[in-house]
Amino acid sequence: MSTIPYKIYLEESEMPTKWYNVRGDMKKKPAPLLNPATLKPMTIDELSGVFCRELAEQELDDTSRFIEIPEEIRNFYRMYRPSPLVRAYCLEEKLQTPAHIYYKFEGNNTSGSHKLNSAIAQAYYAKKQGLKGVTTETGAGQWGTALSMACSYFDLDCQVYMVKVSYEQKPFRREVMRTYGAKVTPSPSMETEVGRKINAEFPGTTGSLGCAISEAVEAATTQEGYRYVLGSVLSQVLLHQSVIGLETKAALDKYGIKADMIIGCAGGGSNLGGLISPFAGEILRGENNYEIIAVEPASCPSLTRGRYAYDFCDTGKVCPLAKMYTLGSGFIPSANHAGGLRYHGMSSVVSELYDQGLIKARSVEQTSVFEAAEMFARVEGILPAPESSHAIRVAIDEALKCKETGEEKNIVFGLTGTGYFDMVAYQKYNDREMTDYIPTDEELQVALSKLPKVD
Amino acid sequence: MSTIPYKIYLEESEMPTKWYNVRGDMKKKPAPLLNPATLKPMTIDELSGVFCRELAEQELDDTSRFIEIPEEIRNFYRMYRPSPLVRAYCLEEKLQTPAHIYYKFEGNNTSGSHKLNSAIAQAYYAKKQGLKGVTTETGAGQWGTALSMACSYFDLDCQVYMVKVSYEQKPFRREVMRTYGAKVTPSPSMETEVGRKINAEFPGTTGSLGCAISEAVEAATTQEGYRYVLGSVLSQVLLHQSVIGLETKAALDKYGIKADMIIGCAGGGSNLGGLISPFAGEILRGENNYEIIAVEPASCPSLTRGRYAYDFCDTGKVCPLAKMYTLGSGFIPSANHAGGLRYHGMSSVVSELYDQGLIKARSVEQTSVFEAAEMFARVEGILPAPESSHAIRVAIDEALKCKETGEEKNIVFGLTGTGYFDMVAYQKYNDREMTDYIPTDEELQVALSKLPKVD
Repeated sequence: MSTIPYKIYLEESEMPTKWYNVRGDMKKKPAPLLNPATLKPMTIDELSGVFCRELAEQELDDTSRFIEIPEEIRNFYRMYRPSPLVRAYCLEEKLQTPAHIYYKFEGNNTSGSHKLNSAIAQAYYAKKQGLKGVTTETGAGQWGTALSMACSYFDLDCQVYMVKVSYEQKPFRREVMRTYGAKVTPSPSMETEVGRKINAEFPGTTGSLGCAISEAVEAATTQEGYRYVLGSVLSQVLLHQSVIGLETKAALDKYGIKADMIIGCAGGGSNLGGLISPFAGEILRGENNYEIIAVEPASCPSLTRGRYAYDFCDTGKVCPLAKMYTLGSGFIPSANHAGGLRYHGMSSVVSELYDQGLIKARSVEQTSVFEAAEMFARVEGILPAPESSHAIRVAIDEALKCKETGEEKNIVFGLTGTGYFDMVAYQKYNDREMTDYIPTDEELQVALSKLPKVD
Repeated sequence: MSTIPYKIYLEESEMPTKWYNVRGDMKKKPAPLLNPATLKPMTIDELSGVFCRELAEQELDDTSRFIEIPEEIRNFYRMYRPSPLVRAYCLEEKLQTPAHIYYKFEGNNTSGSHKLNSAIAQAYYAKKQGLKGVTTETGAGQWGTALSMACSYFDLDCQVYMVKVSYEQKPFRREVMRTYGAKVTPSPSMETEVGRKINAEFPGTTGSLGCAISEAVEAATTQEGYRYVLGSVLSQVLLHQSVIGLETKAALDKYGIKADMIIGCAGGGSNLGGLISPFAGEILRGENNYEIIAVEPASCPSLTRGRYAYDFCDTGKVCPLAKMYTLGSGFIPSANHAGGLRYHGMSSVVSELYDQGLIKARSVEQTSVFEAAEMFARVEGILPAPESSHAIRVAIDEALKCKETGEEKNIVFGLTGTGYFDMVAYQKYNDREMTDYIPTDEELQVALSKLPKVD
């Protein structure tokens, strides 16, 4: 038995008291958000109409390296953090690899994922500003659940526009949100102007994330005392999620472990950005080197096959423009794609780090992802979310390479959440009915040809 | 901020290396299991036909105080244990109580409950004996999931007979078991003699736990290299579950906290028995005193309204007779009863401790249980299983009493699991469609009048 425990838990006193803002260490900063009407950088006042003031400030702050975590948020973090950094002894044994595999497990809370780290921060600032409530959209439901929990804690109204097909197919996710007091509305609804318009235009539509965003934004801007919140992509979200990376780094340091490789799944970039921030910071400051790998679905390959350009953040084109790796805001992944990671773009921080060569990217097909998920579940005892399993897939691949070369690499990956609400996808896999789909270059061209003209 | 952290985690080196067998400290022992044919105590050889030899020995051992936990099991425990003892600061704040509330949280593993503690032990001994596999029944699915995980770890075949109505209504539970490689059969099936008989007699029946037990036992005894395993009621299960109480005691001792009151939900008694064992041992040895409360559903009140007598452990009457608090093996809770805790009897160890006055019992109605569950979920961030919420209900009631009296009691309760797969029940509660039912004395008499004649 090695002296490294199965689970490295930090003491509560060792938890971070400040978030780390990797933009503060970047010489070349991510490009600013642009006002879609003027194509000028969004001002704090413009952003404050949509987001709480302090969150708008965090969104624009690309110089501060650290930002204090308010005590109220730290108290909430203590309910489910520090999260364990787990040494995957059983997976190593199964693979017969000389590599040492570690995963930072963010699924040990009722939202089932890392999303809670930012949800509680966004709810806190909304409460502090005296708002009545917040609106948001949710697809698979992880973010909506996290936000419901956070709003319940601070006694804030929470209005969630849930993509209609998910609302109907994932009734349990919906009930968890309702248990936390959230109002969950299937989108498109008849409650917003944009919802009514879409329903009239496409009768019987089962909705999309883009449509739900448009409804949530309308609901936030037409109700007194409401703001819109978002669970990924934004730089403020990556800031909050830096708590994942800071804890991971502290736990590794505590046992004198130097990570060689850090792997995270990437949809909008919230988990990946949070996990790698402190490590990327060390690279940027020239203090250390790490191999960082972003893993995305082959069916939604924004980093590996997208374009680095200004694009709309939402399908409805109501949000600011962001410069990012994108497949075009009209891109919708193939219908057979299971699980999340279906966003057309990517956090502008992650995009810029990728463009600077600090991050590599790899795309994987979903049947191989579920194969990795099943193996992981059986030996490590945790049923992973499909999203997280993208990182598991590449961690296993890399550990198998080490088996060939004999290298004792320290591989760290982010296990963002659990798959309890994704059993429909698991069933497809169990029944051998899951298929893969890789979009052709021609298909990708369609949405990319509609990028806004900015540069 | 108090010096007691939100979550008290033991170090892996502080985890118990031995299970504690409370029977070793009982002067008056629980009554022995009887062979239903001869009404004589079951011998080790008789028991070994159904259970693995070592488990049969543990079942009969009422003198050893400690039994070594094999290293293979301790290694598995390290994947999800030690479990946290959580100080419920937010619940205390919500209730404005001077009481200090702690809960031992057993839900942080994919089976979602404490059941895994015994499943891994039972799978280990089956593997050690060279068996091919094990059979079991499952109702709500917690036990079946735990056993699937354990069997997958030791590469044992796992055959689960799942009550047909649950198989159909809880497809996600079923898929988790399948993901762990278990064969899940809706019961009654056409694969066993007893199943075919029941299907012929009651066409279209949706099954019952008693019927599933009968099928699982038949499958175990008619296949070479198989044994039957059970997730509650048995003394061996309580022995394995003592790991809950031992960790709880160690965590309290580490911070110099003396529990005043220990509360656990009680169905078959596996969690309650495990949680209270070391505390009951101190009472039995005259070293300390604790108020221990077993909480059961008002709709299935074996301790508070049952009879202490020999009874069949299963509806099919194929298992040995046990002396226990029972409602009669033919008792079936009202159809409106949600969640588990629907067993007609109670662990003979818990029954005997209750009869000796070491344990008190209280019954609660389910709408008040879900009210407590919702409050707990909102302030503590964990969505509790309906079963666990019985203990939450009484912990809240006791904390509110402390508010009136001003007492700073230390209240400890067992949070046995999470409710992710119980959202149908939560939905009923959210929609205000949940009702209560308390059986009348006359109704209880029906099943009690059919107790076997033993004494």
